Amino acid sequence: MTPGQKQGGPSVRTIPEGEDRERLVCPDCGYIAYENPKIVVGSVTTWEDGRILLCRRAIEPRRGFWTLPAGYMELGEASAAGAAREAWEEARARIEIDCLLAVYDIPRISQVQLIFRARLLSPAIEPGPESVEVGLFAWDDIPWSQLAFPSVVWSLNEHRARLGQRDFPPGGNPPDPVHGL
Amino acid sequence: MTPGQKQGGPSVRTIPEGEDRERLVCPDCGYIAYENPKIVVGSVTTWEDGRILLCRRAIEPRRGFWTLPAGYMELGEASAAGAAREAWEEARARIEIDCLLAVYDIPRISQVQLIFRARLLSPAIEPGPESVEVGLFAWDDIPWSQLAFPSVVWSLNEHRARLGQRDFPPGGNPPDPVHGL
Repeated sequence: MTPGQKQGGPSVRTIPEGEDRERLVCPDCGYIAYENPKIVVGSVTTWEDGRILLCRRAIEPRRGFWTLPAGYMELGEASAAGAAREAWEEARARIEIDCLLAVYDIPRISQVQLIFRARLLSPAIEPGPESVEVGLFAWDDIPWSQLAFPSVVWSLNEHRARLGQRDFPPGGNPPDPVHGL
Repeated sequence: MTPGQKQGGPSVRTIPEGEDRERLVCPDCGYIAYENPKIVVGSVTTWEDGRILLCRRAIEPRRGFWTLPAGYMELGEASAAGAAREAWEEARARIEIDCLLAVYDIPRISQVQLIFRARLLSPAIEPGPESVEVGLFAWDDIPWSQLAFPSVVWSLNEHRARLGQRDFPPGGNPPDPVHGL
C-alpha cells in the first residue's frame, strides 16, 4: 500500500495475515508495530502536614499547568516503583508508597493510570527537567483552575475522600467524565 | 550499528539524542520503537453456584494448561471492557464485571495484570479460537497441577479470600514470588 511513501517506521494500517484487526505496518521493512494501551503511574504524595506535592509542567501537553508527579511506566519496572521514580524525576522527591488510590481508564488516548497514595520522606523538593516549579499545597491553596488534566482533579478528590482510611478499593473514573482526558 | 544486517523492524539498541535510556531503533528507517509495559486484563468469573470459569490454552505459551480468561488490553478500550472481551473471545462467555480483584506486577516480562471479579451471565460457554476446552470448576475440582501461570493461582486464592466481601483493596503480588511469571 502506498509504496514510495517513505516515512520511516510503521505507517500503514492493514490487517496482517492471521489477525482479526488492523495493525500498523512499516511499508519499508514489513515490521508490525503492535500498539497497546500505555500505563501511567503516579502518586498523590503528601508531607506530614497533609500538603500535597504538585509539579508545574515544563513540557507539552499542558505546559505551565500543575499536575501530580506521574508518567509512563518503563519496561522491567513494578508499578509502585515507577510512581516513586516519577516523583524523583519530576520533583526530586523521595517518597514511600502507601497504597493504590485510583485506577483510571482513559480509552480515548489508550491509557490506564495507576495512582498511588504516598508519603513524602523529606520536604527537600526541587524541579526535575520536566517541571518548571514544584510545591506543597494545602487543600485550599491548590491551583484548581490551573490543573493540567481532569484525572489530576479526580485523584485529588479521591485522596480527600479517603483521608484517614485504609484498605479501601481504588477509585475509578467518575460516572460522567465530561472531559475525555 | 551492524549495517547490512537487515532484520525488518527496530532491532538495534541505542540511546537516541535527548533521551536518557536505550531504545529500540530500526537500522533501516530510523524509527524508534518506544517499548512500554503491557496491560493484561482478565477475570475470575463465577457461575451462580460458585464454580469458576477456566480455559485450557490452545496456544503457546503453556499450551494445554488451564488459565483464566485474560489477554492483552486493546487500544481504545477500558480495562473492564477488555476483561469482558477476553472472556467472550476465549470462552464465548458473557460476563458482568463486579470489581477489581487484583493488580499484579510481572516486571520480568513487563506486564501489569488487572484481574476483575465477574459473574457469568449464562452457563452456555464454549471454546474460542485460543482455547481447546473450557469449563466451570468447583474449588476442589480445579486442576491445580495444570494451571498455566503463577498469577492464575494468585488470582484464584485472592478470589477465595474475598468471597462474600465487597469494597476491598485489590490483591497484589504475594510477598515472595518464587516464580517470576
